[in-house]
Amino acid sequence: MKEIIAEIITVGDEILIGQIVDTNSAWLGSQLSEMGIRVKQISSVSDNAAHILNSLKEAATRADLILITGGLGPTKDDITKNTLAQYFHTEMVLHPATLRRVEEIFSTRNLPMLDVNHMQAYVPANCTVVENSKGTAPGMWFDEEGKVYMSMPGVPSEMKSIFTEGVIAKLHQRFIMPSIRHRTLLTAGIGESFLAEKIKDVENKLPEHIKLAYLPGLGQVRLRLTGYGEDANALDLEIANFAEQIKSKASSYFYGEGDDTLGKYIGRLFAQQQWTLSIAESFTGGYISHLITEVPGSSSYFVGALVAYDNEVKIKELGVHRQTIIDHGSVSEQTIIEMAEGCRKALNTHYAIATSGVAGPEGGTEAKPIGTCWIAIACPDGKTIAKKYHMGNDRHNTILRSGIVALDMLRKVIEGL
Amino acid sequence: MKEIIAEIITVGDEILIGQIVDTNSAWLGSQLSEMGIRVKQISSVSDNAAHILNSLKEAATRADLILITGGLGPTKDDITKNTLAQYFHTEMVLHPATLRRVEEIFSTRNLPMLDVNHMQAYVPANCTVVENSKGTAPGMWFDEEGKVYMSMPGVPSEMKSIFTEGVIAKLHQRFIMPSIRHRTLLTAGIGESFLAEKIKDVENKLPEHIKLAYLPGLGQVRLRLTGYGEDANALDLEIANFAEQIKSKASSYFYGEGDDTLGKYIGRLFAQQQWTLSIAESFTGGYISHLITEVPGSSSYFVGALVAYDNEVKIKELGVHRQTIIDHGSVSEQTIIEMAEGCRKALNTHYAIATSGVAGPEGGTEAKPIGTCWIAIACPDGKTIAKKYHMGNDRHNTILRSGIVALDMLRKVIEGL
Repeated sequence: MKEIIAEIITVGDEILIGQIVDTNSAWLGSQLSEMGIRVKQISSVSDNAAHILNSLKEAATRADLILITGGLGPTKDDITKNTLAQYFHTEMVLHPATLRRVEEIFSTRNLPMLDVNHMQAYVPANCTVVENSKGTAPGMWFDEEGKVYMSMPGVPSEMKSIFTEGVIAKLHQRFIMPSIRHRTLLTAGIGESFLAEKIKDVENKLPEHIKLAYLPGLGQVRLRLTGYGEDANALDLEIANFAEQIKSKASSYFYGEGDDTLGKYIGRLFAQQQWTLSIAESFTGGYISHLITEVPGSSSYFVGALVAYDNEVKIKELGVHRQTIIDHGSVSEQTIIEMAEGCRKALNTHYAIATSGVAGPEGGTEAKPIGTCWIAIACPDGKTIAKKYHMGNDRHNTILRSGIVALDMLRKVIEGL
Repeated sequence: MKEIIAEIITVGDEILIGQIVDTNSAWLGSQLSEMGIRVKQISSVSDNAAHILNSLKEAATRADLILITGGLGPTKDDITKNTLAQYFHTEMVLHPATLRRVEEIFSTRNLPMLDVNHMQAYVPANCTVVENSKGTAPGMWFDEEGKVYMSMPGVPSEMKSIFTEGVIAKLHQRFIMPSIRHRTLLTAGIGESFLAEKIKDVENKLPEHIKLAYLPGLGQVRLRLTGYGEDANALDLEIANFAEQIKSKASSYFYGEGDDTLGKYIGRLFAQQQWTLSIAESFTGGYISHLITEVPGSSSYFVGALVAYDNEVKIKELGVHRQTIIDHGSVSEQTIIEMAEGCRKALNTHYAIATSGVAGPEGGTEAKPIGTCWIAIACPDGKTIAKKYHMGNDRHNTILRSGIVALDMLRKVIEGL
């Protein structure tokens, strides 16, 4: 079977001068490689027609599929689509369905339509429009001289929705894909090298055609198994077998697969058991509540949170004793337990999470350096479990990491791990 | 003055398959453009000698300076440096100072040195080694046929330290730099095309050597002015003049410059005035509190938040009347005003923000479709301003956009805009 080669071209000076990080290419790269398409090169080029033309020509010498993002939209002078028309020696034509969509978007938002917005409905005559359900710039599919070119806007949410809603199906129709099967196992609460040590026996046994990748994140490591072959079902069985072996080596750290998140996992637990949850946040400042409420349907189990930044709020709203804070400080085992129990009582829930810590950059002491943090879980049986952590000295990462650690601690408490 | 053109080549399959996002290129792009060097293209290529060779040749046709990251180190078979030796038709030679450094690192860590670690001290004969103070793979500078090539490891901390400690000074010695000056103006609360419409007179007047770029985000648009020329001071003055003209066309939408955020801007306002802030969040679920508490020093003005997801919490903790919710619903002008005023009173602050809306995917009705949202600001003078918004139908983006809109509404209320 012939391997399908893709290249990605991102258009925009803002990437070249480092003003924004190109996350689109990484996302597309992972989507394509999951489909069994090999990405050979990613190129970021300037908002300049000659440069874009040159990149298209170079990419066409190497690839079967060329994905282009960016350089669409009114203030970019639609450089990409005009250049594509030039590349294919064709004219720009009005696409009536796109015009209706753009008009609809403006009328829904009760905004007047400008001339530049009208121009968004013009596309090169040889393209097939792939609808953009999140914005005004249409996706454009070209199939010329045996190669496919797909142009999408650079706004990540629009690009992703065009790709998943329109492009994936068209690629499956157009190309014969080899079988590449992926499975991603999610862990929390264990570092990459410790995890590697635990599962090394299984890793050493993996055959040539099954690869294992470690994808570390803040407080989490994802493990991706990828198998290559002719028979998708046989591959799935083989990967499933290794996945089970890997999980059995460190079972308490694995909580889900694929696109799952700790927030969703906890949401399912609470919804099934008809439990309710509340949160008392100090230094995490609302971030844990955000992780919980990002999940659709969270209103069925999440009652609310008290972001008790100021000690007076801890005292008044959570019922923490003033003397506890005076004696032990707000970042202490005693205070965190009173916060969790006070929150559980005030918001009348089955479980409550509480956090208190030193996020920095100010406020660190020798006894409680920046990154020191207490997390507690108050449980329906009246017990409260409290733990101390060190989260490092970067404020932003400390907040994000603590969110994950708190949710993972709740999971472990509930599951008795 | 001749413009200096750079290209960046990143080597590694992990970038192409989307396993990691290429943040090195963005960092290098911003460093180079601050020095006045124009980045023309960024290319990510696979761990493959033929592909790397081809990229080097292509880049050399366009650029004066070629920065290469990645593909160094024992597990990569040092593909980049061996390919560079091949590209320059030269031999690998031992670099004694690098060998001493590698030996030192291993002995400090009390680890045995393997053969592959020895190999790290070999470099192409025609290079100048630039020391890597953070790791074992050396930086390599080549000056051949009028072009400079600089190869660095892909680990971001090592790459950054080699670049800042060794490369910047060498570039200033080797090239005569033109002046490139940037200034980024931040706006909130206005869409890209409306902003363009308002400032088009100024935009049309911009001379050839000053460019304006629109960088849209959720609820925010950044405007970047870039000037090219000989005299940095004259450029700064010229850009400042245009920046003032642009701001004067839409002054109420501009809140800051550069790396500023609405959260920081509001933080400065509150800290200066010694005001305090509290937040009552329903559907935004803690996200606004997160935006406020991300800012270092926020504990001096942020007292706390009530994430009142459940109506009972709105009633009990915020003092919203049960009858108000029964009569008008929780997403209504009446309820949002009671939430804001109740929060301001309960947490005893100068200002309070309140949000209530339908984030979706469930819960939309004809009268209140998904994306409907009310935001209110309760003020120290006892007045409360409430506004209704439509935020679109994507849960995740609705929450994120509402966070920005709420902070921008607070800014405008305080500034009487």
